[in-house]
Amino acid sequence: MSNIYLDHSATTPVDKKVLEAMMPYFSDNFGNANSIHSFGQAALAGVDKARKQVAKFLNCKPSEIIFTSGATESDNLAIKGVVKALHVKGLEKMHIITTKVEHEAVLEPCKELEKEGIEVTYLPVKKNAEVDLAVFEKAIKDNTVLVSVIYVNSEVGIIEPIREVAKIIKKINEKKLREWEKRRPQERGAKPQPIYFHTDATQAVNFLSCDVQWNFIDLLSLSAHKIYGPKGVGALYVRKGTPIMSLQKGGHHENNLRSGTLNVASIVGLGAAITQIDKRYQETNNARLNKLRKVLIDGLLKNIPGAILNTDLNNSSPSHAHFTFPGAEGESILISLDLEGVAVSTGSACAAGSLEPSHVLLAMGIPAEIAHSSIRFTLGKYNAGAEIKKVIKILPPIIARLRKMNPNYK
Amino acid sequence: MSNIYLDHSATTPVDKKVLEAMMPYFSDNFGNANSIHSFGQAALAGVDKARKQVAKFLNCKPSEIIFTSGATESDNLAIKGVVKALHVKGLEKMHIITTKVEHEAVLEPCKELEKEGIEVTYLPVKKNAEVDLAVFEKAIKDNTVLVSVIYVNSEVGIIEPIREVAKIIKKINEKKLREWEKRRPQERGAKPQPIYFHTDATQAVNFLSCDVQWNFIDLLSLSAHKIYGPKGVGALYVRKGTPIMSLQKGGHHENNLRSGTLNVASIVGLGAAITQIDKRYQETNNARLNKLRKVLIDGLLKNIPGAILNTDLNNSSPSHAHFTFPGAEGESILISLDLEGVAVSTGSACAAGSLEPSHVLLAMGIPAEIAHSSIRFTLGKYNAGAEIKKVIKILPPIIARLRKMNPNYK
Repeated sequence: MSNIYLDHSATTPVDKKVLEAMMPYFSDNFGNANSIHSFGQAALAGVDKARKQVAKFLNCKPSEIIFTSGATESDNLAIKGVVKALHVKGLEKMHIITTKVEHEAVLEPCKELEKEGIEVTYLPVKKNAEVDLAVFEKAIKDNTVLVSVIYVNSEVGIIEPIREVAKIIKKINEKKLREWEKRRPQERGAKPQPIYFHTDATQAVNFLSCDVQWNFIDLLSLSAHKIYGPKGVGALYVRKGTPIMSLQKGGHHENNLRSGTLNVASIVGLGAAITQIDKRYQETNNARLNKLRKVLIDGLLKNIPGAILNTDLNNSSPSHAHFTFPGAEGESILISLDLEGVAVSTGSACAAGSLEPSHVLLAMGIPAEIAHSSIRFTLGKYNAGAEIKKVIKILPPIIARLRKMNPNYK
Repeated sequence: MSNIYLDHSATTPVDKKVLEAMMPYFSDNFGNANSIHSFGQAALAGVDKARKQVAKFLNCKPSEIIFTSGATESDNLAIKGVVKALHVKGLEKMHIITTKVEHEAVLEPCKELEKEGIEVTYLPVKKNAEVDLAVFEKAIKDNTVLVSVIYVNSEVGIIEPIREVAKIIKKINEKKLREWEKRRPQERGAKPQPIYFHTDATQAVNFLSCDVQWNFIDLLSLSAHKIYGPKGVGALYVRKGTPIMSLQKGGHHENNLRSGTLNVASIVGLGAAITQIDKRYQETNNARLNKLRKVLIDGLLKNIPGAILNTDLNNSSPSHAHFTFPGAEGESILISLDLEGVAVSTGSACAAGSLEPSHVLLAMGIPAEIAHSSIRFTLGKYNAGAEIKKVIKILPPIIARLRKMNPNYK
């Protein structure tokens, strides 16, 4: 049985204080937040508090938060919802820019839109999985309406330059507007269509500033279960004035952007989880994880010949250490570690079981044959130094054994 | 503060045993059900068990269950997902039949499809809100592909004749197939397009057989929080072979029909909640609620002059007692009752706060001006006789007072 958990990018345990905050909303304050009576109002008070907590973290207004069932729904709503609204506004031949290293929750909605006639550019990335700003700027077209760039990559942990991306968008939007304003009123035509910026911040919330003002973000997706909150709940920040239409139709909840009875206890859990993440917590936790990660990385690089670190230590979430161990197959390593009580992953949990090599690693230029030899360690707030030491001791003989069994490895 | 809860159609408290079943999945077996390591496998085992529990209740295969964020998502997926799949298959000019008394989670997706060129028939209903089978049969067209009829109406509690509806569909599908088979192979052309049958069973699960074989159902939506399970989780049954495409795209979870990290604890809760509902529970609970309801109805009709019962006692869920009290405004009654500690609703919680009269009551032929004077009582398994007696005592003077304040009431 595993007891060393190093897969925090897949999910995290619910923090005891978060669970405590949720508990009254299951069987006591159990009302439907839409109900007018006091059971309903008690539930609504919990939701309102959580909405303020999320808004405070993002530095936005509570009314700009839409609660969803998780980051996948938030991403779908952001991307398809904006395009749908612009389509209804009369826009045709729209262009979206995203990257080759997004989560499937962004890539798949983009592919869906491509089938419906939307043009999508998937930006290539540098060797460390980082978006090249010059390449991005060149990709922008007159009909670009939406840019979606992940904040922290879930596989290798790279931090994308989302603030720089957003600043380029801002510059272009402002330039377009200035040019339009310069024209004589009768020659102006319609106001220029701005480009909106979405980021999937699911893996970033724990570690980085998600201030939507400072980062010039129009839409931001996040999820509770990556920040020691419950599964099945997330949020989408939508800057006031951003055109967006709902995908899930029904009783017009969430300002008519997301129908369905509010998931009160889980929303309260999301609020409680995000409230724990302030600047001081991030600084302390990041520093501690950075140290632990350094021990792990140094230990593995020293003790496993040919080990390759795929995480850029100069620019990554402190939780991530992504390795390739040529000659040993990723799933075999994972299972061997699991038998010794250590839980890791070969990549994104959402892609687990897939026989395809990771699209992120391929985009980084890692050949398919060695991409399969990858292991992702993602550290969390409960990990201790002793656990890391144990991994450094356990893993080298596992790799050696697997390599020995591999006839193609020299 | 309310302490008599008579709004079980809006939501129910989580049963203590259900919460007990969920608890290990928050902070202990907290893994991502997609992860290969033992944390993931423990989570997956919980999901698998719940899938079997739901399948047993519906008398279907576990592989035919898709977990969703609730009935609203299930309804959207069923209706838009089937139409989308048929569209991709090459079908155009499709026709859907539903009723005027569906929940918004069915009506709104239908309206959305109408804007996209799908023809939708909204069946009128009889005075008791029941679908007229003869009217239904006449509404079927050659290009009808989907019929969606709610099982139990959330407002007045009427039980729709879904098995009879399904049998008519079955008869037509079989007839079409027989005619096709009679033709010579070279003259046959494509196999005839069957009509699929969806029911929103959200309000029925507690009280009625949801056996999808016996009821000839192709798609069935349900929600946990109406059956003493948690909010934010539901399921869609999809009969094997039914064409359907996902709406929420991402990591290809749930047999590629619903992406997003599985909401493990809540799914376990749904399984635990549905397992409590067997035939014997339904019989006992239905009999008990029927008795309580009779006391409530007799008491109110006797003590409130002019009170009108809108629930058909010969054919309704035993939880429902929907009244109109002409001369007293519904929200005023609700608030007055709440001040005395009794929680009721004016209709669907999803429509609470809306100034529009209920579409269900209008479809029943109740005039808009008196539809506003409605109160829905929905009883649940924890209600006791003393609570009902208290309501019978409290409500008549409230109605009298409100009528006195109403200058238009004689």
